[in-house]
Amino acid sequence: MARWQPNASERLVAAALDLFAERGYENTTVIDIAERAGLTKSTFFRHFQDKREVLFGGGAMAELLAKAIAAAPVSATPLEAVAHALDEVGSEAFTAARREFTARRRAVIAANPELREREALKGLGLTASMAEALGRRGVPDLTSRVAAELGALTLKIAYERWSDTANTEEFGEVARRTLGEVQAAGASSLR
Amino acid sequence: MARWQPNASERLVAAALDLFAERGYENTTVIDIAERAGLTKSTFFRHFQDKREVLFGGGAMAELLAKAIAAAPVSATPLEAVAHALDEVGSEAFTAARREFTARRRAVIAANPELREREALKGLGLTASMAEALGRRGVPDLTSRVAAELGALTLKIAYERWSDTANTEEFGEVARRTLGEVQAAGASSLR
Repeated sequence: MARWQPNASERLVAAALDLFAERGYENTTVIDIAERAGLTKSTFFRHFQDKREVLFGGGAMAELLAKAIAAAPVSATPLEAVAHALDEVGSEAFTAARREFTARRRAVIAANPELREREALKGLGLTASMAEALGRRGVPDLTSRVAAELGALTLKIAYERWSDTANTEEFGEVARRTLGEVQAAGASSLR
Repeated sequence: MARWQPNASERLVAAALDLFAERGYENTTVIDIAERAGLTKSTFFRHFQDKREVLFGGGAMAELLAKAIAAAPVSATPLEAVAHALDEVGSEAFTAARREFTARRRAVIAANPELREREALKGLGLTASMAEALGRRGVPDLTSRVAAELGALTLKIAYERWSDTANTEEFGEVARRTLGEVQAAGASSLR
C-alpha cells in the first residue's frame, strides 16, 4: 500500500543531484534516484513526470512571476511590476535554504547540452509569461515585450550571482541591484 | 560519378518545403526530398547534414550579424551598430526573392513543436552573437547584452512582418521602423 512519505519530493531532488554529480545525468536512472532516496519508483512518478522534471519543476516559476506582476500596485510602471515579481521570487522560490541546491543544479545543467537547451527554453517561457502578465495590466504590447526581456535578463544575471555560494545576500537584494544595472545599461544603449 | 548539380541546394530546399507542407515534416525523409528535387541522397548530404538543416542553414545568420556589427562605423552607438547589421540582413539574406520561401518556412516551423524549439534556440544564438560582437567593439558587457536583446526582438518582429507575403516593403525598411518602435518602447518601459 502506498503511504505518505514525508519530504519525498525534497529527498528525491537531493538524491538526483547527488547521483547526477557522481555519475552524470545520462548514467542515472529514475530507479537509481528512488533507491538512493530510500523510496520506490512509483513514489518518484507521483512527484515527477520523468528524470528531467527533477531539475525543471513544471511551470511554477512562470506562474509565480505572472501572479506577482498581476498583484503589483496599479500605479506601478512596467519595470516596477517586474521588480515586484523579482521580490516575490526571492521570498517564495530562491530562499536562502535553496541556494546550495541551486548551485548544484546549475553545475549539472552546465555539464549537459540537452539540459542547457531545456534551461534556455524555460527562460523563454518566463519571458513570455511576464510579457503576457504585463499585457493584462494594459501595458502596450511592445512595451510589455521589451520590459519582459529586461526582466528576464535581470532574472538570469541575478540568479547566476545569487547562486554563487560565496554570496550571502538575499535574492531580492541581488535582483534589485541587478535591475538597476540593467536599466542603466538600457538607457545607455538607447542613447 | 558525382557531378555538379546546378542550384542543387535551392532545389532541395524548395522540394523539402513542398513535401513538409504536403505530408508534414515528420513524414518526409531525406530520400523523399532528394527524389522530388531530381537528385540523389548523396547530393543531399553534400549540402545538408540532416533534414532539419534544410530549414536552419547552419550559423550563417549569426555570422552575418557579427560581421556587420564589427563593420559598423567606429562612431556608431550600440543600437546604430545593430541597425547596420539589420540593413545587412536585408541586403544579404532576407531579399525580395526569399520572401515566399520565408513565409513557407515559417508555416512549417509553426506546425511542429520540435522545430519551434529549434527556432527559439537559434534566436538565442543570434542574441549571443550580437552581444559578443558589440563586446568586441568595446561596449560594456551589460550594455552589449541589453542592446543585443533589443536587436534580437527587433529582428524577430521585423522578420514576422516582412515575411507576410502581403507586405511589399524591403526588409531593411521594416527593420528600421521596427527598431524605432522597440527603442520607443524601451524608453517608455524605463520611465
